[in-house]
Amino acid sequence: MKVYKYPTGSEWPGILSRPQYDYNNLEILVNHIFDEIKQTGDEAVRKYSLEFDNFLPDRFEVSDEEFHIAEEKVDQELKNAINIAKRNIEKFHANQIEQISKVEISTGIECWRKSVAIEKVGLYIPGGTAPLFSTVLMLGIPAKIAGCREIILCTPPGPSGEIPPSILFTARLIGIKRVFKVGGIQAIGAMAFGTKTIPGVYKIFGPGNQFVTQAKQIANKFGIPIDMPAGPSELMVAGDTFSVPEYIASDLLSQAEHGTDSQVIFVTWSENLIAPVLEQINLQLKKLPRKEMASASLDQSRIVLVRNKEEALLMINEYAPEHLILAVKDQEFFIENVINAGSVFIGNYSPESAGDYASGTNHTLPTNGFAKAYSGVSVDSFVKKITYQKISKMGLKKIGPVIEIMAGAEQLEAHKRAVSIRLENIKKN
Amino acid sequence: MKVYKYPTGSEWPGILSRPQYDYNNLEILVNHIFDEIKQTGDEAVRKYSLEFDNFLPDRFEVSDEEFHIAEEKVDQELKNAINIAKRNIEKFHANQIEQISKVEISTGIECWRKSVAIEKVGLYIPGGTAPLFSTVLMLGIPAKIAGCREIILCTPPGPSGEIPPSILFTARLIGIKRVFKVGGIQAIGAMAFGTKTIPGVYKIFGPGNQFVTQAKQIANKFGIPIDMPAGPSELMVAGDTFSVPEYIASDLLSQAEHGTDSQVIFVTWSENLIAPVLEQINLQLKKLPRKEMASASLDQSRIVLVRNKEEALLMINEYAPEHLILAVKDQEFFIENVINAGSVFIGNYSPESAGDYASGTNHTLPTNGFAKAYSGVSVDSFVKKITYQKISKMGLKKIGPVIEIMAGAEQLEAHKRAVSIRLENIKKN
Repeated sequence: MKVYKYPTGSEWPGILSRPQYDYNNLEILVNHIFDEIKQTGDEAVRKYSLEFDNFLPDRFEVSDEEFHIAEEKVDQELKNAINIAKRNIEKFHANQIEQISKVEISTGIECWRKSVAIEKVGLYIPGGTAPLFSTVLMLGIPAKIAGCREIILCTPPGPSGEIPPSILFTARLIGIKRVFKVGGIQAIGAMAFGTKTIPGVYKIFGPGNQFVTQAKQIANKFGIPIDMPAGPSELMVAGDTFSVPEYIASDLLSQAEHGTDSQVIFVTWSENLIAPVLEQINLQLKKLPRKEMASASLDQSRIVLVRNKEEALLMINEYAPEHLILAVKDQEFFIENVINAGSVFIGNYSPESAGDYASGTNHTLPTNGFAKAYSGVSVDSFVKKITYQKISKMGLKKIGPVIEIMAGAEQLEAHKRAVSIRLENIKKN
Repeated sequence: MKVYKYPTGSEWPGILSRPQYDYNNLEILVNHIFDEIKQTGDEAVRKYSLEFDNFLPDRFEVSDEEFHIAEEKVDQELKNAINIAKRNIEKFHANQIEQISKVEISTGIECWRKSVAIEKVGLYIPGGTAPLFSTVLMLGIPAKIAGCREIILCTPPGPSGEIPPSILFTARLIGIKRVFKVGGIQAIGAMAFGTKTIPGVYKIFGPGNQFVTQAKQIANKFGIPIDMPAGPSELMVAGDTFSVPEYIASDLLSQAEHGTDSQVIFVTWSENLIAPVLEQINLQLKKLPRKEMASASLDQSRIVLVRNKEEALLMINEYAPEHLILAVKDQEFFIENVINAGSVFIGNYSPESAGDYASGTNHTLPTNGFAKAYSGVSVDSFVKKITYQKISKMGLKKIGPVIEIMAGAEQLEAHKRAVSIRLENIKKN
């Protein structure tokens, strides 16, 4: 990790810069596969499953029998843990449902809005070495709470054609009935346009590699919204004399093991903290099975010594971290004033991994500085809000002239007349 | 208007199809202009203002003096009307602020989320024949209520270099202090990347022509979110014996005058209503100053006779109209069961123009079927939500083992150890 002491303002952009990626070269490939899926449906999905995943299932959809077998394979300890995490995530997300609240704008004008679930949603769970069943919880639970009628899940099969049992167990546990063994660009294309066996959806969620990321961006261009733009995971830790170096090092390492492109930044105004944190990182790193990955990620990571907590706050808001740990004494100062962050972990006993799995908050969060304008996934992500207005004769009599004047000034005569015709009739009667 | 009587299911996609546009041919142009803006900033903005708008102001930013002159030019009647609309829109949108509600997940684990305003937002108001001051209200008021610190507005100057006085008056009225005389692709590019005189923003809002629409889509690709994808405005009216043909005709015409690409669909299960509605349309059309435009738009519009209200509901949800007027007897049936619509107008005295200007709801709504997954603009559009978790020693002691098991099963050893290290120390003490 590179250490920066009291950097000047002009050094900040360099220190806070993120690794840059250009996925545009994948655009031609994605467009090509999407075109084929639009034309030949399942045939194209089969072709690219074989080409990219080296496996072609007899059928894409996971059968009841496969669900049963999976359930038996997951050990009871893990089942119990997933059940506790499920309960916590449900408890936090259930609180996000917006109740209808009618507003009487003035006599005879009543307006309200109603949250309605997006009817059909598609969740993508990446394959790879580790089975990301936690992401099934994080996407599936808010979708269920929102009330989405059709929730499908796509995930690539392993080399033997199997989906990790923990993923199938978790899907079934939270009520996702339809899981498809398909991954990559072809999974996103199938969900965007629909095929005979894989239903099209109205919104696509979930993490993925560069192919999936680019496919989601292009699906978005076709009018299918996505949860949020993707980027490598990242963590910022703010610490002072209140911090425990051992804990800070463990948090930085937990983020760093995500991948060689993960980024961690430790910002402090306690110079004495830097040496012990570095020492702890070296000590703990040796014991990690993924130490090469974590080590590569640490090369891109930074320790920044700033003058005081006010400057640390400025740096946090400028960086807009996906995850922010506040291992600091004056927690209230930061809670009050942080404006750009995905999820915030307060104190010495709130490690990032708590939020990754089981505290109840969502782990699908805006990275890459997107926290300046995006929220993490929540029940909000699975609903849209319809507005309603009900105006009585008396209400229109009162507001009508205002509409007539404004429509007239915007030279929209028919807008004006839609009111005038009604007002004339009200007067007559 | 073409009349369809009892169409079969296979005819629905044709009847509910929307005019298709392909803006992709503008992508090269937009990318080119964006590149120039990134390189030369204001110089490029000046160049393209001259090229596309035939006008180059001495300075882009509207001066205090220009605001004062504008205010004097707006007549008092319009000022009063705008003030009433402002009050109603504020009243409806103020109700959308989410309060912090802390959830105790279990003893020692407290989670909550907080809505925080997006710091910097850019509003775009199109030029053209009519001054769209109503859109200044619809975008500016929720931005102000959300608490955005920096709200800028870009709008192209007219041929004499002037911004319509009603736009400047409205901007100043709601507290927008910085307005820039710049339009089109160059305005979106300036807000996306920032120039010396025009600040960059974190999110871009507002309607526009095909150039602006495409520029917003490409800004989105660069990581700058936008309010929603654009499309021509549209209205669906559902009517039965409760309806007044005169009113329905006036509503259909008010939508049709928006532009030749506007679409209106009237769906009814009362066959007797069709002839009087058509008659009223012809009668009222003759009196309209924009009759050519409305007439062209009506050519793309439809009257559909369905079997009953249940079938009408299916058609509404399949079409997902931007605006929906329910001029029907059984209003509750539709209020309860409509799941895809932007904004809904209930009864005979709630014309669409009420929502366009002054009922209080927002008129920036999802068109083109996007209501299946998108909401209209609201205070939500100007905030993002940060989640927080605060876990005590006792809380981590309880949830820690769950995290360890799950992280272990996902093969994320450092995630597990961030918890284990803390639990070991808790045990020791």
